[in-house]
Amino acid sequence: MTASSYDYDALFQQALDGLKADGSYRHFADLERRAGHFPRAFHHGLGREVTVWCSNDYLGMGQHPAVLAAMHESLDRSGAGAGGTRNISGTNHEHVALERELADLHGKEAALLFNSGYLSNWATLGTIAARIKGCVVLSDEANHASMIEGIRHSRAEKQVFRHNDPVDLEARLKALPLDAPKIVAFESVYSMDGDIAPIEAFCDLADKYGAMTYLDEVHAVGLYGHQGGGVAEQLGLAHRLTVIEGTLGKGFGVVGGYISGSAALCDFVRSFASGFIFSTALPPMVAAGALASIRYLRASQEERRLHKDRVAYLRARLDEAGIPHLVNPSHIVPVMVGEAVRCRGLSDELLARFGHYIQPINYPTVARGTERLRITPGPLHSRADIDDLVGALATLWKEQGMAAAAA
Amino acid sequence: MTASSYDYDALFQQALDGLKADGSYRHFADLERRAGHFPRAFHHGLGREVTVWCSNDYLGMGQHPAVLAAMHESLDRSGAGAGGTRNISGTNHEHVALERELADLHGKEAALLFNSGYLSNWATLGTIAARIKGCVVLSDEANHASMIEGIRHSRAEKQVFRHNDPVDLEARLKALPLDAPKIVAFESVYSMDGDIAPIEAFCDLADKYGAMTYLDEVHAVGLYGHQGGGVAEQLGLAHRLTVIEGTLGKGFGVVGGYISGSAALCDFVRSFASGFIFSTALPPMVAAGALASIRYLRASQEERRLHKDRVAYLRARLDEAGIPHLVNPSHIVPVMVGEAVRCRGLSDELLARFGHYIQPINYPTVARGTERLRITPGPLHSRADIDDLVGALATLWKEQGMAAAAA
Repeated sequence: MTASSYDYDALFQQALDGLKADGSYRHFADLERRAGHFPRAFHHGLGREVTVWCSNDYLGMGQHPAVLAAMHESLDRSGAGAGGTRNISGTNHEHVALERELADLHGKEAALLFNSGYLSNWATLGTIAARIKGCVVLSDEANHASMIEGIRHSRAEKQVFRHNDPVDLEARLKALPLDAPKIVAFESVYSMDGDIAPIEAFCDLADKYGAMTYLDEVHAVGLYGHQGGGVAEQLGLAHRLTVIEGTLGKGFGVVGGYISGSAALCDFVRSFASGFIFSTALPPMVAAGALASIRYLRASQEERRLHKDRVAYLRARLDEAGIPHLVNPSHIVPVMVGEAVRCRGLSDELLARFGHYIQPINYPTVARGTERLRITPGPLHSRADIDDLVGALATLWKEQGMAAAAA
Repeated sequence: MTASSYDYDALFQQALDGLKADGSYRHFADLERRAGHFPRAFHHGLGREVTVWCSNDYLGMGQHPAVLAAMHESLDRSGAGAGGTRNISGTNHEHVALERELADLHGKEAALLFNSGYLSNWATLGTIAARIKGCVVLSDEANHASMIEGIRHSRAEKQVFRHNDPVDLEARLKALPLDAPKIVAFESVYSMDGDIAPIEAFCDLADKYGAMTYLDEVHAVGLYGHQGGGVAEQLGLAHRLTVIEGTLGKGFGVVGGYISGSAALCDFVRSFASGFIFSTALPPMVAAGALASIRYLRASQEERRLHKDRVAYLRARLDEAGIPHLVNPSHIVPVMVGEAVRCRGLSDELLARFGHYIQPINYPTVARGTERLRITPGPLHSRADIDDLVGALATLWKEQGMAAAAA
């Protein structure tokens, strides 16, 4: 190393020190989930069992016997991995079966699997917007990082419209040439505030101005709709979306992402998206587990019913205790704190003194000043668990002299 | 839909028709790998068992009993999925243990897991090059799509140097300000030609001009080096690389990608890379399987020994039969065809008449005019399997009047 060269580690460390100074440095909890005992996990840092309140395995399908049985069986039959990219020996029969199931779930002609939801958004938006000449992407300002990065990657013209605002969207659509190709990209359930997009109004506008619609349902699939097809299914709107994107890693409890849409669209993305073409395929057993999970949740209503019950019960108990939380129509219960160091402190106390694990959500996942404890109660949390959590929160609220919510 | 709006499906179909016309449209083989019987798989399209010759599960670890046992055990203990992003409840103890093992394998302070090798390259290069002010990336012209996309994403200045050429690299380094931060990014084994980079010469140049080095070892980990640490380990150079990037999906037989490097570098990427932060973590059982595979291959030499034997035997038999193949110092045996439609035709005949599955490699994976059958023989192919394959190739070569290699 020459004397004039950079000390790269010092540069990295300097940036990390900045995060530590403002409280947004992330400490990962070293957990061991206990299948059969969700939402309990063993916390290796703490050396004790804790109750997890911030998982996106919303329905606890990650421990469901039907899912585990399908994965054990596939592991014995086909082994640990896919063995290649989808094109080069990596397509296994489970991928084909899962893509058919996903297409059917969303009422589409086809579906396409990715290694993660992040990749599915990034690769699909990145490919479509780049390869349709003159394409303009209209993107909700609250869209997930993976959509933003995909649109950025495409280098297509982007218009960011006000969050969930059809008036602003229409003004922007109207200002564009009618014959310009367009994509309106948005989510159904927004993960941090838990609000839900006006899907029908957006579809009406897309039709009026000749735009495709791209809907991210990652926080909704499995949870909403009579078959778990998401908010679009619940509202009878699935047929109006050009693309419905989802994940296998949240409501379905495994890992991976996908899109569903027309046969031509899915084949196009399959054929041109670098992030799809050049990735080793998901292990067959992952596809088998996801397939079992989806099939189960298309038939069973019990998990969705219990989920709603627990969400309503938590909200009622928080209200009684005067703990401020964002009101929204979804299953996400954000308890607002508003300051990074305090948010981390509350999380630490909840964990160390009460055995409740809720990761503090700080910048850049949410805007500074809106730091929060994001609670995702599920069918596996008992009402007693919820009573216990709210009791702990109430104790901390009082001890720290934090403002109570208006009654 | 208004009359003036686009018919998007027609646009997609038109692009697909172009691929079909020039023979580069991809048909995926619908396979079912048979654990315990690799390299055999059941071909659902054909309705028969076939021998797979193009898998990147190079050592057959995807069916290894130690790997499968670890995954079964983890599945029962921790369930199907991680339950969240690494930050939000998704870090499981297996991730922590695997990252420690990977750091140790490469002699680095730390390692960081990603959902795929593609993501690890894209997110790491994309983040480092973007966030170090004025950073210039010197990128080998044959680098993988995931590295190219990561560099592109960073919007840093890029210099593409001639493939494996230290002279061209030095000329470019010399022309840059000595105090500019720089990354030299390259691979050890190039997947399609099987050639190997001059790692030491590149490290010498990086030191001389104060650059970081970023080495992609995805086609080498598990296979090269006394412990499977890759070509850098084999040559005693691992300590000279700033970043060694690898995969869990090829030699190790599972799925996922990673980087290893200094603690500060890995923490920096962990803290700032959008593709890491916002992805659901790999299932604990995937990490458990990869961990078992790495530990096994650090101790056992038998798979690497057999692998070399089979590669040498295939080459000798191809030479005897006059089948032209690229000479290279690695385990990859590219039989050159040079034309997309013929390449697909040979692959189809091999499969339908002889039960040998080798996916044709066409544009854009390789340049037009260099289409090939890329063969990756492994320890699970018997010498009799190889005799049978070469016999089939020789028959087709003769029938189709193709040029023999010079004796």
